[in-house]
Amino acid sequence: MAFEFGSVSRRTFLASSAIALGSTAIRAQAFAAEPKKTVGFALVGIGKLSMEQLLPAFAKCEYARPVALVSGHPEKAKEQAAKYGIDPKNIYNYENYDTIKDNPAIDVVYIVLPNGMHAEYTIRGAQAGKHVLCEKPMANTPAECAAMIDACEKAARKLMIAYRLQYEPVTQKAIELARSPEAVGVIKQVTAEGGFNIGDPTQWRLNRKLAGGGSMMDIGIYALQAARYLSGEEPVEVTAISYSTPNDPRFKEVEETVAFDLKFKSGAIGSCVSSYGYGCNRFRVYGTKGQIQSEPYLSYQGNRLWQGNDREGNGLEITPGNHFALEMDHMAQCVLDDKTPKTPGAEGLQDVKIITAIYEAARRGAAVKIV
Amino acid sequence: MAFEFGSVSRRTFLASSAIALGSTAIRAQAFAAEPKKTVGFALVGIGKLSMEQLLPAFAKCEYARPVALVSGHPEKAKEQAAKYGIDPKNIYNYENYDTIKDNPAIDVVYIVLPNGMHAEYTIRGAQAGKHVLCEKPMANTPAECAAMIDACEKAARKLMIAYRLQYEPVTQKAIELARSPEAVGVIKQVTAEGGFNIGDPTQWRLNRKLAGGGSMMDIGIYALQAARYLSGEEPVEVTAISYSTPNDPRFKEVEETVAFDLKFKSGAIGSCVSSYGYGCNRFRVYGTKGQIQSEPYLSYQGNRLWQGNDREGNGLEITPGNHFALEMDHMAQCVLDDKTPKTPGAEGLQDVKIITAIYEAARRGAAVKIV
Repeated sequence: MAFEFGSVSRRTFLASSAIALGSTAIRAQAFAAEPKKTVGFALVGIGKLSMEQLLPAFAKCEYARPVALVSGHPEKAKEQAAKYGIDPKNIYNYENYDTIKDNPAIDVVYIVLPNGMHAEYTIRGAQAGKHVLCEKPMANTPAECAAMIDACEKAARKLMIAYRLQYEPVTQKAIELARSPEAVGVIKQVTAEGGFNIGDPTQWRLNRKLAGGGSMMDIGIYALQAARYLSGEEPVEVTAISYSTPNDPRFKEVEETVAFDLKFKSGAIGSCVSSYGYGCNRFRVYGTKGQIQSEPYLSYQGNRLWQGNDREGNGLEITPGNHFALEMDHMAQCVLDDKTPKTPGAEGLQDVKIITAIYEAARRGAAVKIV
Repeated sequence: MAFEFGSVSRRTFLASSAIALGSTAIRAQAFAAEPKKTVGFALVGIGKLSMEQLLPAFAKCEYARPVALVSGHPEKAKEQAAKYGIDPKNIYNYENYDTIKDNPAIDVVYIVLPNGMHAEYTIRGAQAGKHVLCEKPMANTPAECAAMIDACEKAARKLMIAYRLQYEPVTQKAIELARSPEAVGVIKQVTAEGGFNIGDPTQWRLNRKLAGGGSMMDIGIYALQAARYLSGEEPVEVTAISYSTPNDPRFKEVEETVAFDLKFKSGAIGSCVSSYGYGCNRFRVYGTKGQIQSEPYLSYQGNRLWQGNDREGNGLEITPGNHFALEMDHMAQCVLDDKTPKTPGAEGLQDVKIITAIYEAARRGAAVKIV
């Protein structure tokens, strides 16, 4: 691991010195002076998310730090490396990517590529001996997801899917309230919507091979996640209706909108929408005792949460955090402490499995069981 | 018609007197003195809705007034008649109901019976020569609805379904905004929910024969209506998931919750929920230019409407009106002016047709086309 120091022996040293001195104050000071163990991340893909969110977020991380970039654009990579203090020797491209195995500074590869490339670069990363943090959706198909899980298991590397909301305080508070018998009671329904009006028709998100699908893969997955983590359950059946505006150049290959309903094991219902045609960004949980609601819930910042069916003011006071910093730090801590990430490969596979069933339900005009 | 006076000749008389006198002031005074033409209503069924809403609402009507009651409970009927100045001679029961044909005071019968009795009492009312205002849902099946329309056509009597929201200002403003290219643009989605936590397990609404179904017939129909009148379109296809809590004595015969999605002709989507398990009472319209939202939207009063995706304060300032008074006055005016009601039998039939398809979709686990 890319520790700043040979820290185990250093910690032992400092600890014993403190004990020898018999002074709690001096001991605390000694620990404070000890640099934190950190974990080196290589960003694989330096598109908009990497440049606008991830690279700046490292400044707020306690355990994760950027040490390498993997990109098809050497000039852009050099520029970003310079900006974030990354050694230019640690810039890789997609051809020499596998040689990261020889670079001990890299502990984790964070796959920020188009969905259709997640499987390949996760598997190659694991085979190079690196832990993998992979953007959502995990991959285009359940089979790809299974292969990713398999490769990481075989390499004894950790695999985490980058569901940033599960690591930030507003979502965590929502989940806490949703589990509360006093606040919500028995959950009867979760409605969740995710959508935005997508721009440039030539972007990879609108290319079936690269994106695996349309709005459902990219933004509807947030609604699906919300329905799952808020209900605390898995759906057993889905129905769906899909729609794309005819002759809209954006939707030649992938769908615009999907309305999907989930039937959970307990009978609770998820009523969800996904769209690339218009903005929607809210959820509500209906329970026998009460409700919680959020709008927006999936933005990078400014998410709001209310308890009850009224929306007074800005909602609950929750100290926000940088979603990406929290998520990357979680991965780093899992590596440091040898723990399984809260959103492992199985979590990503489950979503891709359900999304596949949603697409099938829309295509066949039939309810599809999730097995 | 149950006019207070032989008003046509009276109006002619007053008008010509005024002209003869050559004084606008006197003429206005003369018109003011002329009693309004009114239309006599017989309430058929005096349950909670009649007693708590309809009978009090007549006081706010300009054209409709209560002249008769039809009930199986003579004492209750006498009491209510006394309270609202209804001639006790105009109290009927379900056996002698057809003799209303001999009572010229009754112009309209307002059917406020359990759903399963709507068809019979509408048809008998029309055959007795009366116009019919019938509560929603129109009937238990499309076939019953068709028979009702047929009977009213044959008798040359008007038939209106009591969709009160279509007559009140908040809904009307919502529809106006939904049609506005500036406010909403092209509608992409309507979400609409209707639900409440139903009480007494022995009530007729939970009896399949009397209610025709569960929440969908009674409260989900509001969500369906909203999706239809806000989109301004008819669905071509529906999917649905239905759920009833096992061993809940309320849901032995009818369903608790239905999540249903509508695909409209234009491709716009309706994402809707109906429940007898928990309260939900909101809609939102998503368009290419903007949004409108309402919560509550189906209450008897206090409904609120916002333009945009934020909810600042209490929403748009709209002068409210008594839904039932407005609805009954509309029926009365249609009778007076010989016009077709805005929500005729065809409107009721369309909802029952779609609800039947929703039930079929839930039962079969299949998308069902609306033909």
